Parts: sequence; C-alpha cells; structure tokens
Amino acid sequence: MKKISLLGATGSIGTSTLDVVRTHPEDFQVVAMACGRNIAKMAEQIEAFRPLLVSVQHESDVAKLKESLSVPVEILWGEEGALAVATFDQADYVLSAMVGAAGLAPTLAAIRAGKTIGLANKETMVVAGEYMNAAAKKAGVKMLPVDSEHSAIFQCLVGENPAQLRRLILTASGGPFLQKPKEEFVKITVEQALKHPNWDMGAKITIDSSTLMNKGLELVEARWLFDVPPEQLDVCVHPQSIIHSMVEFQDGSVMAQLGIPDMRIPIAYALSFPDRLPNDLPRLDLTQIGQLTFFKPDEDKFRCLSLAKQAMAGGGTLPAVLNAANEVAVAKFLDREISYLQIPQVVEETLTAHQNKTPRSLEEILAADLWAREFAQQVAAAA
Amino acid sequence: MKKISLLGATGSIGTSTLDVVRTHPEDFQVVAMACGRNIAKMAEQIEAFRPLLVSVQHESDVAKLKESLSVPVEILWGEEGALAVATFDQADYVLSAMVGAAGLAPTLAAIRAGKTIGLANKETMVVAGEYMNAAAKKAGVKMLPVDSEHSAIFQCLVGENPAQLRRLILTASGGPFLQKPKEEFVKITVEQALKHPNWDMGAKITIDSSTLMNKGLELVEARWLFDVPPEQLDVCVHPQSIIHSMVEFQDGSVMAQLGIPDMRIPIAYALSFPDRLPNDLPRLDLTQIGQLTFFKPDEDKFRCLSLAKQAMAGGGTLPAVLNAANEVAVAKFLDREISYLQIPQVVEETLTAHQNKTPRSLEEILAADLWAREFAQQVAAAA
Repeated sequence: MKKISLLGATGSIGTSTLDVVRTHPEDFQVVAMACGRNIAKMAEQIEAFRPLLVSVQHESDVAKLKESLSVPVEILWGEEGALAVATFDQADYVLSAMVGAAGLAPTLAAIRAGKTIGLANKETMVVAGEYMNAAAKKAGVKMLPVDSEHSAIFQCLVGENPAQLRRLILTASGGPFLQKPKEEFVKITVEQALKHPNWDMGAKITIDSSTLMNKGLELVEARWLFDVPPEQLDVCVHPQSIIHSMVEFQDGSVMAQLGIPDMRIPIAYALSFPDRLPNDLPRLDLTQIGQLTFFKPDEDKFRCLSLAKQAMAGGGTLPAVLNAANEVAVAKFLDREISYLQIPQVVEETLTAHQNKTPRSLEEILAADLWAREFAQQVAAAA
Repeated sequence: MKKISLLGATGSIGTSTLDVVRTHPEDFQVVAMACGRNIAKMAEQIEAFRPLLVSVQHESDVAKLKESLSVPVEILWGEEGALAVATFDQADYVLSAMVGAAGLAPTLAAIRAGKTIGLANKETMVVAGEYMNAAAKKAGVKMLPVDSEHSAIFQCLVGENPAQLRRLILTASGGPFLQKPKEEFVKITVEQALKHPNWDMGAKITIDSSTLMNKGLELVEARWLFDVPPEQLDVCVHPQSIIHSMVEFQDGSVMAQLGIPDMRIPIAYALSFPDRLPNDLPRLDLTQIGQLTFFKPDEDKFRCLSLAKQAMAGGGTLPAVLNAANEVAVAKFLDREISYLQIPQVVEETLTAHQNKTPRSLEEILAADLWAREFAQQVAAAA
C-alpha cells in the first residue's frame, strides 16, 4: 500500500491521479492533498478519499472548505500548508502536480523529506533541474516522471544502460496550429489556442502546447531528468500523439512507448513502477488508427521552441528565466492583454536582457525567476 | 571476447554476422563455422576469419574446399560435422543460422553443450519449441533471438515483468503481394515472389515472407521463445518494416522497437546483449520516412498465416507438420513444379491428414516431420 501526498489535487493531473487511486484501492491511499482555489472540487475529493491533512492556497478558503465538509480533516493554507502536505510524515510518496513555479518549493521539501517523487510539475526540473538532481541524490530518493513524454522515455530506458543512448526524441502533437500558415498567427485568439487536438489539460499547459513552449520546457526537463546533454535531445512532431516519445541507442535501435492519449496510464506507471497495473481503458489498435505521421518542427513558426533550446544550451539561470517570462506572457495572453505572437516576443526580450550566471543556490535561481517575472511584466505592459 | 561457432556461415544471416564480427574484432572471434554448398564463399570467409574448425554439407566438397585455401583448417562434413561445430569446446556462443529443419539437431546439441544460443533458425522453436525450452532450462542456457521481430520483442521485454504483458504484436511487411487482388494470386511467378520490398534474405524465407507463412512461423516461434499462449499473439501488417514488433502490457502501454531494415542490428544485439554496440549504419529518421501505416492481415488472401495460427492453436506435432509441408511446397514452387496458390493447398492437405499428438521425444517430432515431408511430396506430385 503506497501512501500518497497529492500536490495539485484539483488540477487535471491531480484529478486523473485520484481516478487511478479509485481504481486500485488495494494499492494506493491518499493521505494528504493540496489544492489552489477550487474549493468545491476539493470538498468532493476530501469526501471521497478521506485524507488526513489538506491545504488550500488562500486563508480565506479554509472556513469555506470546512463548512462544506461532512468529515473532519486538518486544513492548512498557503505555502506553509503545501510544504506540510509535501512532507507529511504518513506519506511515503509525493505526487507533485501543482502547475507552475509554485510547485518548486514543496517538491524540494518532499525530496529532502525522503519521499519518492512522482513528478508532474515541469518547472521543478526546468527551473532548477541540476539543483533538484543534487538534492535527490543526497536524499537518496527516486524521481519518477508523470508527463506522458518523460514517462515514455523512462519506460524506453528500463533495463538499458543509459551510457549507450544516442538521442532522446520527444514527440510533439504540434498543437492546434501545426497546419496554420505563419501569416495567420497574428490573429490567433485565446479560444482557438485553448483547443488542443489530443489531450485535455489545464489552460496554461494548453497554451504552451499550442506555442510548442510546452515541448521546449519538456526538453529542458528531459535534459535533467535523464541527465542527457542538450545535443542529445530532439523533438519530432507526431500529430496523432500515439508514440509518446522515443530513445535512440548507439546500435541504431529506437525504443518507443505508445498508447492512447490518457494521462491515467503514465500516472499509474509512476505510482506503481516497476509494476504495470491492469486497467479497463480502451486499447491501442494501430490497425484502426491506420497511420502515424512525423515532421520536423518548424522553429521559425514556433519560436518558443527555438527560445527554449537556446535557454537549454545556455544553461545557468536561463531556463528559469525562460519559464518565468513564459508564465507571465501566457497569463497576459489569457487575460487578453497581449496577442498570441507577443508571447515569444516577451520571452525573447526577457532572455536577451538577462545576465546569465551559474546559480549556486535555490535562492539565486528564485531571484532570477523573480527578476524575469518583473521584467516580463514590463515588456508585456509596454507591448 | 565472445568465441562464436557459426552455423550457416554463407547464408544471409551468416554473412551479416561475419560483418558484425569484422566491425568488432575486440568483442568477437569466430572459432568454428558450418556451411552448406557455397564452397567458394566459405573459402573466402575462412581466409578472412581463420576459424579453427569448419564443416560443409557434402563429403565431396571437403577436398575442393581444402584446395582453395591458403591456411590450414580442420574440415568436417555432414550432420556430424555440423554437430562438431555446434559443440566445439572453444566456443562459448553458437549462432544458429542454418535454414530449415536441418538446423534443429545442431542447435539442440549446442544447447546440451551449454553454449549460449543466438537463434536465427526459426525451425528450432517452430518444430520443437517446447522440447527446446525444456532442454535449455535443463542446461541453464540463454537463447537470444536474432530475427528482427523476435529481437524487437525481446528488447521490449528488457527490464519488464513478463507476467504483466497482454499481447505480443509481430509486425509483417505484408510482402510484395499486399496490394495484389486475390484473383491475381493464381498467376504469381517465382520471380515475382522472390522480390521482397524491404529485406534482402534467402530464397526460402523470401517466399515464406510473400505468403505470410514466415509470419505464421514467427508466431509459433514467439509462442515458445517468450512462453506466451497463442491467444496473446497477434500480427499487424506494417509495410514500412520500421517498427520491428511490439509488446502490449496490461496497463495499456505498448513498447515498440524501431530501426532501419538491417539485420546487422538485431544480430549485433543478440551477440552483445545486454550491451548495445555502436555502429556506423544509417540512422533511422522518422521525419524523413514521414509515415508509418498499419493494417489487419487479410487471412483470406494469405491462407498460410491462417494455417499457421491453426497449427499453433492445435499444438502437439502440428507446427512441425506445418513447417515440413511448407518446406516441401516452397521447394516445389521454386522448382516450378507447383503454382503459388498450391503452396497453402499442400500445407493444408498435409495438416488435415495428420494425426496430431503430444510428442514425448525429439524422435516423435522428427517422425511427424518426416511423415509430413513424404505426404506433402505426394500431394505436390498429384497437384
């Protein structure tokens, strides 16, 4: 029985995680949960899963949540609350599924507390990958990827000698604008960008997926999750999202993991590794799908991918700056304050203005993150 | 340094194996070789690789081979010669690449002599899979598949729990007649059937590939190599031959191995497992290939596949009979004594006439094989 603390319970990954737990009550128990502002959903989840400890983002929601519950539970709030959930002593596994840089501190706390980590929060490795790896090594904890691409790579590497890999190939759906001519990008609306062809995800990630920044962030994440240098990382556009990613080895063999686009599969794998739990999800039938296609990504059209590669190659605090500037730009786009094409503009101007350095502490990384947020806000306001 | 006895040195797999050895002289040495009738090629190979022991099929070729050599080597002949090569005490690894049922006895001898087996001879597992598995278990030897499909499955299973697999999916190129209407099968010539779209192989295997009997035999082989019941085995037509085969697990994940169609990759893997040796072969570039397609096999058109499945499901001596009847039928077709459509007819009539039983010894299996050959000869002669 794995005892799980779930960070980001009401989000897309959090909800799917609870689906997996519901299907395997003999294997998993949720002992603690943290969420943001979706108090109604959190209340439902608490009734269903009976955690011992929960945390919400805002103090003002504590009473509201308490009122709507028929069961007693300890309710904390804010960053301290999230840290308490992340380090809860009755949990042996922390599923880190908060969205954005807010997931960083709780994930680090969970690592330091010796919990096994199921990592769905991209920013942990994007912003502070090298630092997190060192912390995980020191604490002797395993980090298991939840993201379908990284889970695929992880599965391709099972039983293999990582020294004999030649290339990690992340597949990208290409998002809703793969076929849209570059000239029309200027007119893209929030509604258009929120429609993802294959996956049902949160708003921030869906926008990132449409700009391919999502794939760029995943490259950086893969770089640290698998400790592979930037030149051994590649992106391949694969609109059907059936091959979730691949690993090419030095003998020319390419291993791939395929599946239907359902996050419950990689989530269950991260929870049950090295075992694979049975499920009743629809099966992949390649003869029904008929064909799988592959393209080189157009980095001229999807400038965010190119910017992410630059930041990855530059290293230091650049990936943190990339991520922070992108968070700001996407929020501004969702708030209709900047246009779609201004997302990469804001990110690029912020990257260009940044004085890169090799961070020696998490504080230095977070300082770069903060600087980037402020700078990107100014760029967006002036845009 | 692995010391290798090579059974079937001058064939397609044997030649590719020597290519691999040539590229990795620090890893492999060929200490013994057996071949059939291609004495000129055998002489070249002996000059290049300097084995200590060789064997040819016919006594009359011994003197001929000796004359054409500038180096001294012990030359044996016939089945005894092949057995001596298979059990040569200086070899620790036997690559079994003879074509047809002739490979059976030397492979069994190698297993009993405790050699690690690289298995390219399909018939070993098709004709006597259960028996060979028991012998390998008793001798404590590993059998590593060489065939690209089985190597792919083997690679997909590395580090996995075989109890958690749901289905092995062998891919089939579909051969040269995938798109040909069933009505035109009656006119297929030997020349047409010998043209395989993706792989360069021997004549017998190329014909089997065009009838999909090759895939049927591979199903039976997979059934025993991986100890998986018939209902967990499937065939998927994939004309590009890029995905070499797949494994579906009970969590819905499908692992696949991909590569360019070059036998040197799975051969090198079988020789170097668990390591993967670097090579300079062209790399797989999915973006250049563009698309991969998948179809259900048409068993009405490719009756050999259906017959193989029946034999696999029936078990006992039926797979041996299937294989023997097919060997006879293909030889008769290559000799232009029967037509293309008579290949499955000969096989089916032989299977139907056979009294199936559970064999208790290799002798009983070989008796069924012999009976099938004689019966199929008669059917073919009457056709």
